[in-house]
Amino acid sequence: MSVETITTEQNVTALALSEEEIFAAHEGGKLSVSSTVPLLNKRDLSIAYTPGVAEVSRAIHANPELARTHTWAERLVVVVSDGTAVLGLGDIGPSASLPVMEGKSALFKAFGDLDSIPLVLNTTNVDEIIETLVRLRPSFGAVNLEDIAAPRCFELEERLIEALDCPVMHDDQHGTAVVVLAALTNAAKVTGRELEGLKVVVSGAGAAGIAVSEILLAAGVKDVVLLDSKGIINSERADLVADSGSAKARFAQRTNPRALSGGPAEALDGADVFIGVSSSKLAEEHLKLMNENSIVFALSNPDPEVLPEVAVQYAAVVATGRSDFPNQINNVLAFPGIFRGALDAGARRITPAMKIAAARAIAALAEEELSAEYIVPSPLDPRVAPAVTAAVSAAAE
Amino acid sequence: MSVETITTEQNVTALALSEEEIFAAHEGGKLSVSSTVPLLNKRDLSIAYTPGVAEVSRAIHANPELARTHTWAERLVVVVSDGTAVLGLGDIGPSASLPVMEGKSALFKAFGDLDSIPLVLNTTNVDEIIETLVRLRPSFGAVNLEDIAAPRCFELEERLIEALDCPVMHDDQHGTAVVVLAALTNAAKVTGRELEGLKVVVSGAGAAGIAVSEILLAAGVKDVVLLDSKGIINSERADLVADSGSAKARFAQRTNPRALSGGPAEALDGADVFIGVSSSKLAEEHLKLMNENSIVFALSNPDPEVLPEVAVQYAAVVATGRSDFPNQINNVLAFPGIFRGALDAGARRITPAMKIAAARAIAALAEEELSAEYIVPSPLDPRVAPAVTAAVSAAAE
Repeated sequence: MSVETITTEQNVTALALSEEEIFAAHEGGKLSVSSTVPLLNKRDLSIAYTPGVAEVSRAIHANPELARTHTWAERLVVVVSDGTAVLGLGDIGPSASLPVMEGKSALFKAFGDLDSIPLVLNTTNVDEIIETLVRLRPSFGAVNLEDIAAPRCFELEERLIEALDCPVMHDDQHGTAVVVLAALTNAAKVTGRELEGLKVVVSGAGAAGIAVSEILLAAGVKDVVLLDSKGIINSERADLVADSGSAKARFAQRTNPRALSGGPAEALDGADVFIGVSSSKLAEEHLKLMNENSIVFALSNPDPEVLPEVAVQYAAVVATGRSDFPNQINNVLAFPGIFRGALDAGARRITPAMKIAAARAIAALAEEELSAEYIVPSPLDPRVAPAVTAAVSAAAE
Repeated sequence: MSVETITTEQNVTALALSEEEIFAAHEGGKLSVSSTVPLLNKRDLSIAYTPGVAEVSRAIHANPELARTHTWAERLVVVVSDGTAVLGLGDIGPSASLPVMEGKSALFKAFGDLDSIPLVLNTTNVDEIIETLVRLRPSFGAVNLEDIAAPRCFELEERLIEALDCPVMHDDQHGTAVVVLAALTNAAKVTGRELEGLKVVVSGAGAAGIAVSEILLAAGVKDVVLLDSKGIINSERADLVADSGSAKARFAQRTNPRALSGGPAEALDGADVFIGVSSSKLAEEHLKLMNENSIVFALSNPDPEVLPEVAVQYAAVVATGRSDFPNQINNVLAFPGIFRGALDAGARRITPAMKIAAARAIAALAEEELSAEYIVPSPLDPRVAPAVTAAVSAAAE
């Protein structure tokens, strides 16, 4: 598949979707389960069901390891959501989130060749979600948490990783973080900088913002400033002093080395990189305050923090989350290969090293044709998932 | 498909299965999830995932009824087990039960054209199983309970039906009961009797035995005698007086109208019908005590309570659960059509009337060619599921 560099207008026109078409595609849902063995005659039935299946059940009972190879569970990814932070729609509940989760399961198959089913939950209680998945543990092989609101998602993911002996990842956090790191690695190259020296502003301290900051620090970035709706996150802020156990308060200790305070103007003054993962707009007057040759990732969907046509007047590299602009930062570049690599390696955890390996693999694929308009491969580039799988699998060992 | 009347030896030879073949068929599991929509280009992704999917999620949030038509959940059957009573293997646990549940899900697709996934649980606690399924309610459209030990299965099914607003059925109970009623209806015809006048002995007071007794009483049979390992169930028995709330104790009130006591000999003396759904053997000397032209259903699998070659010396009609003898009483005749019919009708419960309608539909299909060796259609007869679906759906309205 060739790299896509369709211009904005062409793409918007090409993609113009009608409501009818969208709803027709969703009728009856988007997933289907089928048997991988024939069931056409008595012999088939005797192999796949009684009496043959009893041999396999008996063998697994005697040697539980056989469940890994002789059931589908070991390679089944459950896409788990409580529907509290769905796309840009917010807390729409589990039923309304289901089309998104079905889509996610479909992407796992299309890009990672992994079977996947959505499990949406009628509870937002962290204890109850963990308890439910612990009880269902023999049914699946990995958990992709999806569209769960911050700050609950941090505690949930952390405790679930402890509770389950299989890969668990909240994709809104780490999928995004991995692709951002890949894109930033290449954007730094394009603008002749090193990751370590970048001054980065992350706007949004929710699931994605915290995880992006985390991976940037892990990858060697020294100067990360987090912004939320109340301004720059620093350890003096009254709300964070009051809530000292929160993810934000913990990040106040690890970020903002120049001890900045104030709002977007103070944060962006002299910054090299803006990474937007909230719906707050980036004002043109603030954009002007950034360093020469700046990098702007306006990832809010469907409305970026700043439109690319505005951003390119000031920034050297601009990326968004949308398919109709160049440099689409899309999680689908990461999660299929991350889960596939972890499962291929029989890994029980998705470690920071595996995430960084995934980011490097994604970045490497864009390197040959690197330009300001091509810092990450297309989400449809068929080289991506195998490369990420191999890198993650190797990093797991 | 023509009706199969292969003789025992032919069939055993034809089915001879090797371990290699069985294990090879189970490698990687027996189920696969796929997308029903294409995911080949940006346009496909924009319809099935962002931004298009947001339209559908927003619509469901505004009108929850749309989840019934625009997600897969409404027609998804979860096959739920705790692995405590798996085939003839007993309490082998959830992981080892999974190949059976995968097979069951595959049968739902093959015979009922319904998507189905197995959910096996790491708990045998009734409260916890109910709680888990209540939390997952938005993820599925119906619950097939499978291979859950008695007496826990009775309480679980009863309470789950109250807790969920969707079809719930423990197939080991009601699937079996429906097919037994179908077979007995035709066996009575073959031997020139009416259901109402039959003296029936049900051997085994577990999940299947209780449900078989229940449906026979509901269908008009007046004289049902239940046998368990301690003998005939009657309201005087000390263990049942002590445990007066149990399913057995309740059935002691509703069965055994001649107030028999004792063991198999007392039960079978003058009986018209033996229905075996436990592993207890039926001794030839007891078989001799039955009335002329008796009916013997030896349903234990893989070892029937009495071998057909012995039973036919005394009984006019003999059935087993095995595919290698005539008259196979197999749940697959019932469950795909029962669930499909209930879901087609939008029914919230599977009522006794729907089960009896299913039994009559199965019986009717064998009527034209009725004989002592053909009282139920073959499990592979493609007419069965549509006929059961239509009958159940009609009975639901």
